[in-house]
Amino acid sequence: MVKLLTSVYFAKRLYSGTTGKVQAQKYVLTKYFQGEPKKTDFTIVEETLPDLKDGEVLAEAEYLSVDPYMRAYMIGYKLPTDMIGGQVAKIIASRNSKYEVGKYLTGSFGWRTHTVLNPDVANEKAGLLPVTLLPDFGSHPVSLALGILGMPGNTAYFGLKEICKPNPGETIVITGAAGAVGSHVGQIGKLLGCRVVGFAGTDDKCEYLEKELGFDRAYNYKTVDIRAALKDGCPKRVDCYFDNVGGEISSTIINYMNKYGRVAVCGSISSYNETKLPKVSILQPAIVLKELKIEGFLVNRWTDRWNEGIEANLKWLEEGKLKYQEKIYHGFDNMVDALVGILRGENTGKAVVKVK
Amino acid sequence: MVKLLTSVYFAKRLYSGTTGKVQAQKYVLTKYFQGEPKKTDFTIVEETLPDLKDGEVLAEAEYLSVDPYMRAYMIGYKLPTDMIGGQVAKIIASRNSKYEVGKYLTGSFGWRTHTVLNPDVANEKAGLLPVTLLPDFGSHPVSLALGILGMPGNTAYFGLKEICKPNPGETIVITGAAGAVGSHVGQIGKLLGCRVVGFAGTDDKCEYLEKELGFDRAYNYKTVDIRAALKDGCPKRVDCYFDNVGGEISSTIINYMNKYGRVAVCGSISSYNETKLPKVSILQPAIVLKELKIEGFLVNRWTDRWNEGIEANLKWLEEGKLKYQEKIYHGFDNMVDALVGILRGENTGKAVVKVK
Repeated sequence: MVKLLTSVYFAKRLYSGTTGKVQAQKYVLTKYFQGEPKKTDFTIVEETLPDLKDGEVLAEAEYLSVDPYMRAYMIGYKLPTDMIGGQVAKIIASRNSKYEVGKYLTGSFGWRTHTVLNPDVANEKAGLLPVTLLPDFGSHPVSLALGILGMPGNTAYFGLKEICKPNPGETIVITGAAGAVGSHVGQIGKLLGCRVVGFAGTDDKCEYLEKELGFDRAYNYKTVDIRAALKDGCPKRVDCYFDNVGGEISSTIINYMNKYGRVAVCGSISSYNETKLPKVSILQPAIVLKELKIEGFLVNRWTDRWNEGIEANLKWLEEGKLKYQEKIYHGFDNMVDALVGILRGENTGKAVVKVK
Repeated sequence: MVKLLTSVYFAKRLYSGTTGKVQAQKYVLTKYFQGEPKKTDFTIVEETLPDLKDGEVLAEAEYLSVDPYMRAYMIGYKLPTDMIGGQVAKIIASRNSKYEVGKYLTGSFGWRTHTVLNPDVANEKAGLLPVTLLPDFGSHPVSLALGILGMPGNTAYFGLKEICKPNPGETIVITGAAGAVGSHVGQIGKLLGCRVVGFAGTDDKCEYLEKELGFDRAYNYKTVDIRAALKDGCPKRVDCYFDNVGGEISSTIINYMNKYGRVAVCGSISSYNETKLPKVSILQPAIVLKELKIEGFLVNRWTDRWNEGIEANLKWLEEGKLKYQEKIYHGFDNMVDALVGILRGENTGKAVVKVK
């Protein structure tokens, strides 16, 4: 704890002078979301952290992730409960020689400023983002560990390769195409030799997808007729559909697929804010007649192959084959605004919150 | 052709006296179905069959199949077109030593009384029921070649085993459970050591499923609350869903599944008579959160393993482990009534039409 005690920052910020303990702040969900998440659904709680035991580290959050799945998952928890989520955290005290002070960790620590954990015994299946010591990202910011070099990047990598299994020359359609996962899926699709068509929510996003990321076509789903866009963009119809949104657009796309088409259902952002399941055109007739395979997945099914995805994406990034944008919100107090922002589609690429 | 010429039957029924040729009758679809199929959607046409060439046989339909898929598939054909469908036909003339007169063939010959074909070169992928010489069914009627020892039997066998992949102790839910396929799936499910829960359309059907076929539970979907029935019948929720019907009931069941549940989409009878795709509660949130796999299939993907299914079902039948009911309609003129009948759920088990 010597390092900790000598830190000016900690002297000012973390210690309650009388006890000498570290104070963490965390978001506790106290009300289930109704419609859009609201600040009043949470209470920010101060938590006194225990002293480090052998093998443990103290990690200070530098970037917190906001992801669409957060809107959907909380229904599965008993309230009150700590808010879930991935973060990139700097090790600021350590009693584990493998995890040095100054290095960075990722993990599903939730919306909290400081975490005490033993990285060797952390339950890697507990969240979507396993506890990992960041490899050297070179000149790239550590926040990428929440984006293309983290959970969304691996979601894109494994979801496309393992669920859609695209073959060169096939056509991939992506909804939520300008988001952290969608924009990444499209680029991998191009690297695999496919035709890539995206749907996003603004003309600017579509221009970015086509001009910067090399999508063959991108359409603003708010202004086009989806069926006409598919006809225009997918002359050989659709072999793979990477579904981030659910809803009627997905029914239209799935009804436009080829025999033996594959659908990776990654998210259903269109319905996350709904209190009742919306009704959409049914899928079964197309599923039968075209013998489609539709599979949902959470990225933690590939936790044991995690580094394979990170390394593949890092290699592409360093070769200039993978581009990204980040939208950075600022301040621990603005977590809810950031979450609402991505649910509204404010972001292009990955949205993260810089804690301070 | 000697055998043909000496047949009293042919002398009376098949020959137009002046030319000496065989006359077949067939249904030609001239209007796409709108709502329920109607007789006026078809024209019955007489067709003069060619003389047999070397390798060919003349097969006379004894039983014709009516199956729900017929309602759905015709949309894919240019009109006018011969109606599709499987049949059991007796070989009444042969110029192929492997196919003797008096033996039975199955094949996707369509709604027609007589067919000339070379069974060795028939395109087995052309329909759902491959051209097969019937094995010895013992005391069982040859019509079973359209039921538990034919396409529906193999649909049940392969669909359940290869798509649902049930493990002993898991819970299987089946809709259209009293139909040809559903009633068979449930019995295989029990043989595999699973809990089997069915939904059917009358109390009598449900009683038959529970009392005769050994379903753990069967519910009349027209009178129960589906969610309450699932809660009652599936205390460990649902691992496998064999979907014959689509529609809202399927959304409810899929939303009641366990993590990594598997759905075999075999049919969507609830929407076959609809002119527009009906709207139902969306599936994507459940698909993602529970990482479900939903796959549609047509049984002809297993044509190369056809006999494996037939033999397995025949073995179970002979061991008394597989029961069946048949609903037999009579007369070639009543094909449309029979088709409408199964779409209305008149049948328990397999419906066939005895040609004469």
